[in-house]
Amino acid sequence: MSYRPVTFQARHSVEQVEEGSELAPKFDDRGLITVVTTDADSGELLMQGYMNAEALSRTIRSGEAHYYSRSRQALWHKGATSGLTQTVRQLLIDDDQDCVWLRVTVSGGASCHVGYRSCFYREVPLGPPAGAVTLRFTDTEKVFDPQDVYGDAPNPTIL
Amino acid sequence: MSYRPVTFQARHSVEQVEEGSELAPKFDDRGLITVVTTDADSGELLMQGYMNAEALSRTIRSGEAHYYSRSRQALWHKGATSGLTQTVRQLLIDDDQDCVWLRVTVSGGASCHVGYRSCFYREVPLGPPAGAVTLRFTDTEKVFDPQDVYGDAPNPTIL
Repeated sequence: MSYRPVTFQARHSVEQVEEGSELAPKFDDRGLITVVTTDADSGELLMQGYMNAEALSRTIRSGEAHYYSRSRQALWHKGATSGLTQTVRQLLIDDDQDCVWLRVTVSGGASCHVGYRSCFYREVPLGPPAGAVTLRFTDTEKVFDPQDVYGDAPNPTIL
Repeated sequence: MSYRPVTFQARHSVEQVEEGSELAPKFDDRGLITVVTTDADSGELLMQGYMNAEALSRTIRSGEAHYYSRSRQALWHKGATSGLTQTVRQLLIDDDQDCVWLRVTVSGGASCHVGYRSCFYREVPLGPPAGAVTLRFTDTEKVFDPQDVYGDAPNPTIL
């Protein structure tokens, strides 16, 4: 699919950015904007990622989530490998326009490369810990086997 | 309140980070980790911010959200100025442990310095735009008047 960029406005005042109706996203010094992706039905946080200008343009135009993969340093059409595409139901931007919120429906039901429905499957107990913190799994059932889906592709987690 | 840090583990393998029960957060080259904050009841995305190690420690120990303000370059106990504190109901961490999810209850009902309940009060229409994008307001009712709450404090939005 040929790429036609969406026009983003230059940022010239706090009032324009916070109270106006112009889309004037702030990309950071890497050219990226933060993205938060939740399940449009359950409200569950599925993942947090990044977009460059092209990924944001493609997402707006197509209604399918595109990100920028920092580990692969490439545009990333979510689901292109796994089949687990994200259909965007609503795309919002925050007050200072440096964060995008995607409310999505996931085909296949999973958004996490480890195989869980959400990337957030462990909680940190609150309160002063007695020694080291032990994470508690809030989800223990994988939706898919990463080996089946990704094969020998490099794991995106960076230590 | 004196500061007693929570112990974070060193990151030594993908399996430990993704599948283990050790808390081994990845702080970036600025010493920060991304935070996503949602309303514990409605699931609404309230804000996206950052924590340094001290903010994460204080949040875990106290159960009240602490962030690191990039514009003020300082630890930020959310609500210290506005009274709009966030009580953390659940704190989760993602697969590669570079993002924290806070599920909170907000005293006062607002989390956005512009005065809205959420920082995400504008949506971007989906589909190929005919010319410039026009944002649509999804919330038009401010919970508070920023001038009353913050007075002449500098606006945190960076152009």
